Amino acid sequence: MDDLKWDEKGLMPAVVQDAGSKDVLMVAYMNREALELTLKTKTAHYYSRSRQKLWLKGETSGHTQAVKEVRIDCDNDTILLIVDQKGAACHTGYFSCFFRAWSDGWKVIGKKVFDEKEVYGEKKTH
Amino acid sequence: MDDLKWDEKGLMPAVVQDAGSKDVLMVAYMNREALELTLKTKTAHYYSRSRQKLWLKGETSGHTQAVKEVRIDCDNDTILLIVDQKGAACHTGYFSCFFRAWSDGWKVIGKKVFDEKEVYGEKKTH
Repeated sequence: MDDLKWDEKGLMPAVVQDAGSKDVLMVAYMNREALELTLKTKTAHYYSRSRQKLWLKGETSGHTQAVKEVRIDCDNDTILLIVDQKGAACHTGYFSCFFRAWSDGWKVIGKKVFDEKEVYGEKKTH
Repeated sequence: MDDLKWDEKGLMPAVVQDAGSKDVLMVAYMNREALELTLKTKTAHYYSRSRQKLWLKGETSGHTQAVKEVRIDCDNDTILLIVDQKGAACHTGYFSCFFRAWSDGWKVIGKKVFDEKEVYGEKKTH
């Protein structure tokens, strides 16, 4: 754990992948405290760069991430979390934050789950 | 394209995912030139922060990435590339740079393809 290479702000990017669909959900940032809390609680914690504080993903929305696996890259400077995503990862209501693809402009290709959830109930949201 | 939010160094992280296995392969960084070249050539280009220059992934190893899709996240500050990875993404010989998982220490769980390739030929590398 001491081999990890935090950046000059004490942070490291964390890629988050859904265990079931294998969708890449988001990229967030962790400090050492966030990583240690994530390993201890098996629930994803990050460091919010905008709010400058530790952040339990889903603390407001309820869309928490149960962590199945924590991986590190060859350079010891990037984390990969494999998670079971509750609800949706993105605050916009899409399952993944990467809901737009380039095709002579950014086109929406992602799946919106917030509205469906209200209509169809929890089972439709994954 | 003008809505993209490059950081103070003119860079953006790019998560790279293999189209077939869905494995998250690596995280690299792009500047605007790298992104434009990637879109134009359909082959992944990055910006090397250590060498401070544009970098065609696989230019030395031959392990290029054919880009199937380019996605952007909700904040317009992170790229996701969906690629067909030739050979292996990691310079260590593992298919993915995320070849170690935490289990009271970092344990190797990834698949090494360089040695197998030499022994079994190209077909064994995926």
